Amino acid sequence: MVDNQSAKRKAPSVEASDGYFESYAGLGIHEEMLRCRRTDAYLQAIRSAGLAGKTVLDVGCGTGVLAIACARAGARKVYAVEASAVAECARAVVSASGLTGLVEVIRGKVEEVELPERVDVIVSEWMGCFLLYESMLDSVLRARDRWLKPGGSMLPRRAQMWLAPFRDEEAAEEQKAFWADVHGIDMSCLAPIARAELARRPEVELLLAQNVISSPSCVLDIGDLASCDLSDCQSLCASFDLSSHVRAELHGFVGYFAVELVPGQWLSTAPDAEPTHWRHVLFHCELPLPVQQDERIRGRLTMTQATQNPRCWDVVISFGVSGGGEERTQRYELDVRC
Amino acid sequence: MVDNQSAKRKAPSVEASDGYFESYAGLGIHEEMLRCRRTDAYLQAIRSAGLAGKTVLDVGCGTGVLAIACARAGARKVYAVEASAVAECARAVVSASGLTGLVEVIRGKVEEVELPERVDVIVSEWMGCFLLYESMLDSVLRARDRWLKPGGSMLPRRAQMWLAPFRDEEAAEEQKAFWADVHGIDMSCLAPIARAELARRPEVELLLAQNVISSPSCVLDIGDLASCDLSDCQSLCASFDLSSHVRAELHGFVGYFAVELVPGQWLSTAPDAEPTHWRHVLFHCELPLPVQQDERIRGRLTMTQATQNPRCWDVVISFGVSGGGEERTQRYELDVRC
Repeated sequence: MVDNQSAKRKAPSVEASDGYFESYAGLGIHEEMLRCRRTDAYLQAIRSAGLAGKTVLDVGCGTGVLAIACARAGARKVYAVEASAVAECARAVVSASGLTGLVEVIRGKVEEVELPERVDVIVSEWMGCFLLYESMLDSVLRARDRWLKPGGSMLPRRAQMWLAPFRDEEAAEEQKAFWADVHGIDMSCLAPIARAELARRPEVELLLAQNVISSPSCVLDIGDLASCDLSDCQSLCASFDLSSHVRAELHGFVGYFAVELVPGQWLSTAPDAEPTHWRHVLFHCELPLPVQQDERIRGRLTMTQATQNPRCWDVVISFGVSGGGEERTQRYELDVRC
Repeated sequence: MVDNQSAKRKAPSVEASDGYFESYAGLGIHEEMLRCRRTDAYLQAIRSAGLAGKTVLDVGCGTGVLAIACARAGARKVYAVEASAVAECARAVVSASGLTGLVEVIRGKVEEVELPERVDVIVSEWMGCFLLYESMLDSVLRARDRWLKPGGSMLPRRAQMWLAPFRDEEAAEEQKAFWADVHGIDMSCLAPIARAELARRPEVELLLAQNVISSPSCVLDIGDLASCDLSDCQSLCASFDLSSHVRAELHGFVGYFAVELVPGQWLSTAPDAEPTHWRHVLFHCELPLPVQQDERIRGRLTMTQATQNPRCWDVVISFGVSGGGEERTQRYELDVRC
């Protein structure tokens, strides 16, 4: 009991994990994000957000692209907070854009900075792979509780996580064939080890929409980011009950997200949407599970921030098919970059 | 002086860097290597190496593919040493191949293992990016000094490092255009920062052969791996004097290697050879240097194992053109995975 409490006291918070900000210090990752259609979606939303005369806080402003867009959309004042060294780049761009003063770049962690006023709107591109990876939403909600005026608005305003089962017979067959004849050597005994390895860590890849075998299940819907609780984004437990469109082998589950930036304008990273730099998160099963057409796939998804590094997540997916057979449980570490 | 000696004493050796072996514990990286044409080249060399009745040591056997090939080529006994957990996979494959006894998989660092006898041949696939990255050659030469019979042979037997200047106007123009208009914002002030970032770390990528602007320079030729000194592979200082085939902007230098596996059979990773999993190492310049056709490009390459982690390398390239202008010096950290 005492040990447990002591472990809790020692668990690092997202504020303390400094290596995280270093990963955003170089321009390479910002270039990738700027080239992603997520930037266009944000800029369009900012233009239609009615920012004229408003005060805005941009949490994690990066190179400053969204903060500048807010200023150009008529904001009275934009506080652009950035903890990593790229803040100096944002400052240079703001200056080159003739917006110094209107856009104030503040280098620091948003949990620690002091603003001279509360703001009307908080803009932030905080989403990680499968929405919650990186746990940046924690910081955004803490900033909201300190700096958003009552009745103020959040951009994005709503966030959803989706999960769907997928098939991948082609890759599985190719793997099997590969290990069965490695330059004339039968290494089939390694195939299960390779598969177990694949099933340990989620893979961040693009999945073809045609490989999804049922409708997706919404496993989290934060309906109003302006009023939700911090605890809503620190753990997750959801059931799903889906029906397979086809007879297939279930090879895993694909996770993705969608956010509503302003009313009616969604940015979706689903397999049937245009690709983004987030790609999809593939939770591979150790063993494929045969499913019949119209058979039900039921299960639970549990996600908790990892004790060692709360920017990473421990994910458990338990699932089975209604036709019977035992329920399977797979554990994953959502630890893509840390 | 005292400080210097003390620093030397404290400098970690390649034997002590354990995270290195963990990076080879999963099957993913072995699959990539097995799929690379380097495996075919080795297997062909092993078949023509005259191994009948010989004893062989495979340093870093991975999944055991080369050790098994040696046994199939008639070796009397193969000691397959592997420090990472993939040794257990090698053991399983050797057993499934019915070669237990003939191929003995030994899990351990080659510097620490004990063999019952000296061997006739040492086989090892020890090459890293730009040959020396990972510094695995250190371990191979230490194994040679302990376990190779006088007059025994090494596979590969010879190793060369090559350097050549390249142009990349297209990418440079694209970068310039990108930063000049990022969704309507002029971020040109960031272009030099992005370029400096690119010039800090070598990039491991495939370079098109058509972008190479002169003949390459051989910056290291270890003519006989059976007799070279360990110090030959722990630092490097070479001059180059090349002549540009074209009028172009020099954007950097490409580094690659070639090894002679058995007499007359080379495995080259040059830009004009078939791609390998090593790709090429691109040392980008911070500023492009205009060169005229037939103008000489002269300089020096210095490489030393990094103090903090001798599997990484500090690289300095100084260069200039004969037409005049000042000499430039660029420093790089060859630190691709550590």
